[in-house]
Amino acid sequence: MPVSPTGSWGMSDMRFDVTITIALKEGMLDPEARAIQNALAHLGVPTLSLSTARRFSIGLEAADRDRAEATAREICERLLANPVIHRYEIEVA
Amino acid sequence: MPVSPTGSWGMSDMRFDVTITIALKEGMLDPEARAIQNALAHLGVPTLSLSTARRFSIGLEAADRDRAEATAREICERLLANPVIHRYEIEVA
Repeated sequence: MPVSPTGSWGMSDMRFDVTITIALKEGMLDPEARAIQNALAHLGVPTLSLSTARRFSIGLEAADRDRAEATAREICERLLANPVIHRYEIEVA
Repeated sequence: MPVSPTGSWGMSDMRFDVTITIALKEGMLDPEARAIQNALAHLGVPTLSLSTARRFSIGLEAADRDRAEATAREICERLLANPVIHRYEIEVA
């Protein structure tokens, strides 16, 4: 089966399951995390540290793994992450 | 060094890094995920599927790995997760 050289949609595209995790950069205040730690302390469950993040599981069609990762990066930079305050990690399964 | 048999805080406790992921149960509506998919489609980035979750990274002191996992489960059930709509996963590092 011919592989599309342009990366356009076609029968050669495969499904990739991508996991994007978006967290606050080191040093950014995370008031939600502090509120959860306080609530846990009041429940008698002390914690040494606590941080929050969002996780997005996305199914993508792409010609290969590199393009799937590039699309995930584009999704982070154009929509999900604010580069001023967020860092993100991409895993392609 | 004596190990505390009661599980109370002591010098025998070790630090465990626990990751809790909380997602909607299968079949629950995820309007945020649909909004993100629509926004991506408008940006010219079609997706096959998209789901959202919250991730919490928590540092805990516990006598052993099993107790760290039990504490994480307690954190989910008493504070972070709503058992009617959420499922959760716990990883202990």
